[in-house]
Amino acid sequence: MNDAMLKLKPARRERLADVLYGQILEQITSGQLVEGAKLPSEAHICRDFQVSRPVVREALMRLQADGLVVSRQGIGTFVKSRPSDKLTDFAASAEIASYLRAFEPRLALETECARLAAMRRTKAQLNQIGEALAALEGAFERGETGWEEDFAFHLAVAGAAGNELFPRLLQDLRDIMRGSMRMALGLTRQGSQERRRRVIEEHRKIFTAISSQDPDLARLYMRFHLTESRARITGSQGEA
Amino acid sequence: MNDAMLKLKPARRERLADVLYGQILEQITSGQLVEGAKLPSEAHICRDFQVSRPVVREALMRLQADGLVVSRQGIGTFVKSRPSDKLTDFAASAEIASYLRAFEPRLALETECARLAAMRRTKAQLNQIGEALAALEGAFERGETGWEEDFAFHLAVAGAAGNELFPRLLQDLRDIMRGSMRMALGLTRQGSQERRRRVIEEHRKIFTAISSQDPDLARLYMRFHLTESRARITGSQGEA
Amino acid sequence: MNDAMLKLKPARRERLADVLYGQILEQITSGQLVEGAKLPSEAHICRDFQVSRPVVREALMRLQADGLVVSRQGIGTFVKSRPSDKLTDFAASAEIASYLRAFEPRLALETECARLAAMRRTKAQLNQIGEALAALEGAFERGETGWEEDFAFHLAVAGAAGNELFPRLLQDLRDIMRGSMRMALGLTRQGSQERRRRVIEEHRKIFTAISSQDPDLARLYMRFHLTESRARITGSQGEA
Amino acid sequence: MNDAMLKLKPARRERLADVLYGQILEQITSGQLVEGAKLPSEAHICRDFQVSRPVVREALMRLQADGLVVSRQGIGTFVKSRPSDKLTDFAASAEIASYLRAFEPRLALETECARLAAMRRTKAQLNQIGEALAALEGAFERGETGWEEDFAFHLAVAGAAGNELFPRLLQDLRDIMRGSMRMALGLTRQGSQERRRRVIEEHRKIFTAISSQDPDLARLYMRFHLTESRARITGSQGEA
Repeated sequence: MNDAMLKLKPARRERLADVLYGQILEQITSGQLVEGAKLPSEAHICRDFQVSRPVVREALMRLQADGLVVSRQGIGTFVKSRPSDKLTDFAASAEIASYLRAFEPRLALETECARLAAMRRTKAQLNQIGEALAALEGAFERGETGWEEDFAFHLAVAGAAGNELFPRLLQDLRDIMRGSMRMALGLTRQGSQERRRRVIEEHRKIFTAISSQDPDLARLYMRFHLTESRARITGSQGEA
Repeated sequence: MNDAMLKLKPARRERLADVLYGQILEQITSGQLVEGAKLPSEAHICRDFQVSRPVVREALMRLQADGLVVSRQGIGTFVKSRPSDKLTDFAASAEIASYLRAFEPRLALETECARLAAMRRTKAQLNQIGEALAALEGAFERGETGWEEDFAFHLAVAGAAGNELFPRLLQDLRDIMRGSMRMALGLTRQGSQERRRRVIEEHRKIFTAISSQDPDLARLYMRFHLTESRARITGSQGEA
Repeated sequence: MNDAMLKLKPARRERLADVLYGQILEQITSGQLVEGAKLPSEAHICRDFQVSRPVVREALMRLQADGLVVSRQGIGTFVKSRPSDKLTDFAASAEIASYLRAFEPRLALETECARLAAMRRTKAQLNQIGEALAALEGAFERGETGWEEDFAFHLAVAGAAGNELFPRLLQDLRDIMRGSMRMALGLTRQGSQERRRRVIEEHRKIFTAISSQDPDLARLYMRFHLTESRARITGSQGEA
Repeated sequence: MNDAMLKLKPARRERLADVLYGQILEQITSGQLVEGAKLPSEAHICRDFQVSRPVVREALMRLQADGLVVSRQGIGTFVKSRPSDKLTDFAASAEIASYLRAFEPRLALETECARLAAMRRTKAQLNQIGEALAALEGAFERGETGWEEDFAFHLAVAGAAGNELFPRLLQDLRDIMRGSMRMALGLTRQGSQERRRRVIEEHRKIFTAISSQDPDLARLYMRFHLTESRARITGSQGEA
């Protein structure tokens, strides 16, 4: 494996690490960097991209956290999985990094929301979650992406957790969550029928676990759903 | 066990459930409601406090979540532990409910911050956490509550998690976390030397686990610290 | 909802709680006790079944732990989900209780095995897991239940955890795990094509996570697989 | 940092990895290998110890898992913490590896036992846990190590989990757990008064959480206790 050619345009705007992340991502989705290809060294990227070492490290750390590359200490960094080249139809390449980052606090917060909701939800709150689920199915049937319905579902689960701080924190992540959902569901809409079926089933499992007041199950299914959602974006699972 | 006398003043302000929570809490801390005492029925509290059933349910659910009362379905709700009567020296009784609620999203977010910080922290970030720990020790030695230093410590851990959304979410909880820390550390300052030693040791364990890059240990020690902090406020552990 | 008719034959053998569990289970699978039906009171079951209160409590606790009934304190115990009536084709009714109990230590042990295997597996160990997966697929294609291949897969994951105590403990559960797998996969073989596809996919996800050295993912997918396996037996999910 | 001198006697008995682990451990506890010292390369150890590469890798992996050394990929393996030199008073050096390995399945199994015990324990089972705790305190007061009482406590928690497979699995680990407890508590008896106080407090917290039927708290305190126990053996915490 020779070092892959990595063509970088020096960046000028703020969140430099996100811009660098986006450029590397584009070269992966476009196939210029194929799976298994070795990225140039940190020093090399610093020079070509004209940024400091911490910026390069942050971009590589995030690419690794998102499952797109893998670092082998002392050896180098390699492309691990290739997201759909349609990814950039739904988000600017520099935004994708920030959309994927949203999954980390979401995993922490929303697994706990699901657990607490299974313990504390009132009937009215359960109905709200059920209505959001039905609305998401309706949107899918009409051929829409359904990202607003998706956000409403997750907000309803947070609302059922019996602590107003949870929906408040999700509201604080609102823009980034919605961007992320628009991107994920945009890909899903273009994907197979099977893929849409899975997205609905994952949500229904969460609803059912909250309905039957099983906190461990609700937490597991929320974790599973968010993990699969992220993997559908980054292409780190070989599904249709 | 007869129903305890619960004297309630009808409430008029917004977060009615918090006001009701505060009134019941005051009667527990003051000793009017002793451990094991049975609270009046929901219907009874509705009438005396002149609020709807959902408000009463929310207040009781939160008192239970905070470990102050325990509900036995079909039997009633009983006082479980008695916080220090000095609690209301450091916070208005209607605020205490909201301060305690902050522990739920904190447990979700900050255990994940500690785990990620152990994996990703740079040397500079580790130093910042270490400096915040030293500042907290300094404040204790000067006889101060150290709540600003405490917040700085937790923010530094979030900052080391390699995802700017974590410190942003903690900043969103800033006022409520600070109120909660002022209350908890106010009690600690008045407490025993042993109690102050424990608070420092809990923070030091988190720092050491992040320093030695052990994600599971960092998560465990953060969970332990936050759980013990809450228990020190609600008096649900029999320590000095 | 009136109390359902529950016809019980007094039991004479050892593990009385399992025999009682089995009799109640049979009446659920056969449809004599329908979903939502209220079970007789503990006192009533004690008298009809001629056993002591602790035996009845244990049987009801296990039925609840397995998701077959739900207890509402102070109100009663109700049938929650109905397993396939073919369940008793694959195991004696008094054995089913013990097969389902195996999932509790398995969830504890095997999620940790999967996590450690993702961190420590050698190439040879990964190959062994991969071969066990291929063997399971082969068995399914030949129309066999594949329970020996299933056990071999889980043992290979435990073997890759880098601590010989894990496979030793699984060997200690060997008979009960195999009985449980024979029952679960017996139902799966008779089930839909879709159901067999899911079982394979769940195993493949575990393999892939261990292969790509992602401990959190491996743990999640093992937990998901074991939870779904149990739910497929107890019928607590509405799948084909 | 030069490579440390590591004097190895070629081993001839079975579990070669444990014998090698023990020899390296002895040189750490005796101070021949100081904190920060770099171990010889794998190839070097293979040659001196006359074993194959997998044996060396397993010994180093376990030393790392136990927190005694740390591997930096591509750079080498370094001594991280130094256990008490009294460790080998209580166990043969080749046994210590196997005693420390016991903590991995224990953490998996016993955290779940504690959680389930908090949900399911009968009064009789709670009393048994309480009696085991009192017996442990008694043993400490009489200046005994109390390892039999310690085992009885953990077995009583497993017995209260409402699933006979848990105590059966602990019984399967019985010899290794007892060896491990004899070693840990042997060190504790020789340690400070403060150290004995902590051991009792950790057990009491578990008992109290099970008593007050708080599953999350019981799990947390069991995890904390087992983690601290291991750290007390390996010296990876700087306590008295």
